Amino acid sequence: MEGLFDGIPISILTDSYKAGHNRMYPSCTKMVAYGEFRKGFKGKHGHDTDDTRLVVYGIRYIVETFISKKWTMEDIETASLFFSTHNAPMFTEYPFPKELFEKFVRENDGYFPVKLEALPEGSVVHVHIPVYQITAEDEYAPLCTFLETLLTQIWYPSTVATLSRRCKDIIEEAFEKTVDGGKLSPLLGSRLHDFGFRGCTCVEQSVLGGVAHLLNFDGTDTLSAAYYAQFKLNGGTPVGQSIPATEHSVMTSWRTEQAAIENMIENFGEGLFACVMDSYDYSAALRDVLPAIREKKVGKGGFMVLRPDSGDPVEAVLEGLRAADKVFGSEVNSKGYKVINGAGVIQGDGINIDTLRDICTAVEEAGYSLQCVAFGMGGGLLQSVNRDTMSFATKLSHIRFTDGTSRDIMKAPKTDLSKFSLPGILAVKREEGVPMVYCTPDAGAGEPLVAPEENLLQVVYDKRPLAVPPWESFSEVRSRLANEWAALPPCVDVLTPQIKGVIRGIREVQARWGGSAGNMTPPRKQSRTQAISSRLST
Amino acid sequence: MEGLFDGIPISILTDSYKAGHNRMYPSCTKMVAYGEFRKGFKGKHGHDTDDTRLVVYGIRYIVETFISKKWTMEDIETASLFFSTHNAPMFTEYPFPKELFEKFVRENDGYFPVKLEALPEGSVVHVHIPVYQITAEDEYAPLCTFLETLLTQIWYPSTVATLSRRCKDIIEEAFEKTVDGGKLSPLLGSRLHDFGFRGCTCVEQSVLGGVAHLLNFDGTDTLSAAYYAQFKLNGGTPVGQSIPATEHSVMTSWRTEQAAIENMIENFGEGLFACVMDSYDYSAALRDVLPAIREKKVGKGGFMVLRPDSGDPVEAVLEGLRAADKVFGSEVNSKGYKVINGAGVIQGDGINIDTLRDICTAVEEAGYSLQCVAFGMGGGLLQSVNRDTMSFATKLSHIRFTDGTSRDIMKAPKTDLSKFSLPGILAVKREEGVPMVYCTPDAGAGEPLVAPEENLLQVVYDKRPLAVPPWESFSEVRSRLANEWAALPPCVDVLTPQIKGVIRGIREVQARWGGSAGNMTPPRKQSRTQAISSRLST
Repeated sequence: MEGLFDGIPISILTDSYKAGHNRMYPSCTKMVAYGEFRKGFKGKHGHDTDDTRLVVYGIRYIVETFISKKWTMEDIETASLFFSTHNAPMFTEYPFPKELFEKFVRENDGYFPVKLEALPEGSVVHVHIPVYQITAEDEYAPLCTFLETLLTQIWYPSTVATLSRRCKDIIEEAFEKTVDGGKLSPLLGSRLHDFGFRGCTCVEQSVLGGVAHLLNFDGTDTLSAAYYAQFKLNGGTPVGQSIPATEHSVMTSWRTEQAAIENMIENFGEGLFACVMDSYDYSAALRDVLPAIREKKVGKGGFMVLRPDSGDPVEAVLEGLRAADKVFGSEVNSKGYKVINGAGVIQGDGINIDTLRDICTAVEEAGYSLQCVAFGMGGGLLQSVNRDTMSFATKLSHIRFTDGTSRDIMKAPKTDLSKFSLPGILAVKREEGVPMVYCTPDAGAGEPLVAPEENLLQVVYDKRPLAVPPWESFSEVRSRLANEWAALPPCVDVLTPQIKGVIRGIREVQARWGGSAGNMTPPRKQSRTQAISSRLST
Repeated sequence: MEGLFDGIPISILTDSYKAGHNRMYPSCTKMVAYGEFRKGFKGKHGHDTDDTRLVVYGIRYIVETFISKKWTMEDIETASLFFSTHNAPMFTEYPFPKELFEKFVRENDGYFPVKLEALPEGSVVHVHIPVYQITAEDEYAPLCTFLETLLTQIWYPSTVATLSRRCKDIIEEAFEKTVDGGKLSPLLGSRLHDFGFRGCTCVEQSVLGGVAHLLNFDGTDTLSAAYYAQFKLNGGTPVGQSIPATEHSVMTSWRTEQAAIENMIENFGEGLFACVMDSYDYSAALRDVLPAIREKKVGKGGFMVLRPDSGDPVEAVLEGLRAADKVFGSEVNSKGYKVINGAGVIQGDGINIDTLRDICTAVEEAGYSLQCVAFGMGGGLLQSVNRDTMSFATKLSHIRFTDGTSRDIMKAPKTDLSKFSLPGILAVKREEGVPMVYCTPDAGAGEPLVAPEENLLQVVYDKRPLAVPPWESFSEVRSRLANEWAALPPCVDVLTPQIKGVIRGIREVQARWGGSAGNMTPPRKQSRTQAISSRLST
């Protein structure tokens, strides 16, 4: 099926100003930039501000869909026509690096001439760990940040995966307390169900966000994502599942809700199925309709899920549980909590990480096992986050000028120091199991502080797609996430003493050189390791 | 360029549960569903809750990209393989209407067999006006809501277009007060600039949201949208423009900020250009660097835009204006406000509709004309909205059963009456210029209350793409929006007495039949107009 991107030249998949930046940089032979999250995820209630773990996910999609694509002379001509009318005022000619683009189409088979390193998909790290690093050299050095706009969009699947994983923590805790088998119960994977397709801004988002959620759970109605994960990322092995369920149109199309439910039982009553219950009057439906369909439902032997869809989320769940308990009865499990016979409740309205937590607490306090409850999260899962949620940004960190000197670069706005960036060519290495960040010497400028095989930043594109693609199956990515999330402490300062020394050195030079004149890192020809030692010793 | 959608069968671009609904409806020969916004847009500060106008935009993209696509037997086979593993528990077989799909591939050239009506692109209406209406008949009646998931995504471009238009109201007001030429000034179109590409979740979103903003303004850095609007929607006539501008990497790559700006002036100093000023110390840069580049800048004669990017947005703008005034001087315009010579400020950090309003007020109070200020809105423009922002939903409204009786259907959850839906086959007609909603009789059941040529809901797809596509150029859509927005009062109750009569009738029947048993609209064989009269007379 054809899509949006047909005919759009890849050279315009960036911000306007990027097209002019090559002429705004100083003359240089190397530039390095990287992306990082600067804040941990937190709910609206401010819970968990002390948990700065995050899931990194989405580089494969960006590399395969965009960065690995060959540019053609025709693309550049199309872009050229566009840029000739894009400048203000009066739609005049906007600058863009046509000659550089043509050069790599001629000389590099049309592949964008940068090196890209990234953390493995599904990695769990803390804030400030570089997620990817871009290196551009020689005549292409000024194109280093041209792909920033596309790469920065990794914020989205990473943020959804982190939110979904944080919800899983809450559910795991409730399972440990109230469910036989605790967090190892096979029921856990279906407890947070993705209702978010229609609340997405578009189909592409539904795939990216939906797949990110599927890293943690297998419950989803976002078919686009379930399909993509299964067939494009997992060799056909299924990833996401759902159950037959009514919506309001089904309930209201019958002359009575009872008739609608009886038809559901007839068709799907031997398995799992769900019915939305608030088309007219939720309480009345629980009171009158549920007993009326009891016999038919029990006769079929399946599992019925009640879905409230309005009102107070906590109250709606408790009311549903009590009604189902009254009609179908319950047993007390080994942990002392009631498990309703063949029925449960899914709350799919008003769910975010905070209401999810509130419901877990209330259900436990009411004496029910959380295995009787599932959550449907729609816009709250796929469309409640933004780039500021975990403050993602891409920043330049190193430059080698044409005169052979080089400098580590650091943004540090006085008006918001949380927006500082890391200086240098960066590497990530585990110390006692925790990924930590180093500032490594430029090639040829000294011994690497982090050996390539220890560096968690792995090359995923090197001036062209790799001969052996570095991607793993979706199942392997899921396992990495699960293992690494469990193994990391919630909060760690990941800046090594080594990079702190470099930062301190830059700040001292800035202070000596005084306020406003600009970037104060001194030019240098000495080796990086010498520079670091001299800074650390000041 | 290849895209995401290649190889994804269109039959899985919906929610899982949609695939089962055909078996959950009663036996019927016609179903009608529609989509509407149920709430007006409001800022976080709660301003403008009394403005329920909204811009409708985006149906063309959904129809052209998805709904008009031919399905094939191969697509259905691919989907079949997927559905065979999608049911819980244990990845078993999920129900989907394979026979119906195959039938329309065989008998309808693979086109999805529904009729779709929609408001013209760029229409301005109030909440509760149907935005689109889907009609499915005969054996395909139970597929009526299958496309709901895709169609519902119209919430996004419509909501962004509305937000952007509401911002324009604020800017227009400030222009009327403080700018020569008032809201007719040619400068107005560039005052709200789209910085949102990287804050989008994906490229497709950047196109949809970016284009929606371009309905109101021509300032954008979201090239994907500017390109798409120009070449795919406007026959090549330009739509969006920008100016050369630095980012932090440009400022920090030079040894000093002064050197970075001097290079900008050399390259772009004859025209409009922008420099970000907070890489290290915004105040110091304004105080020390600006005077240092004054002569060079003035010598070139162009226009320099200062960009703060952190700190308090209101203070940052005022500080920038005062510094620029001090360095470049200003003139007082005919309205008594200062216009700085060849310089201005763009605030692109922390901008939403509320801070935008605050800045307009503060700038005016400080005695500056708003023509000295522009706004860059990124995540706040393209990624701060969700489906709940204006509460969009698609609901079933009418059914004709196989026995020939028909019913108007209305969801009305007691637990949240703001989620009520409209009953019947709907039509939209202007009364004294304002679009109002009617409930029309089923075909053959009486005279239409709204003649087809008066009905603002126009057919855009009729069991296949129309022979003559109904789409207009982007320029025409822009004009419609501008004219209709200006012509409509901010808030109108758009339910005609006629449809209120129908609603009242349904509620009275519900009350008579008592609480919980379900949808209480009586079956009927009488003509709609008779039914309406009898309800109105009760």
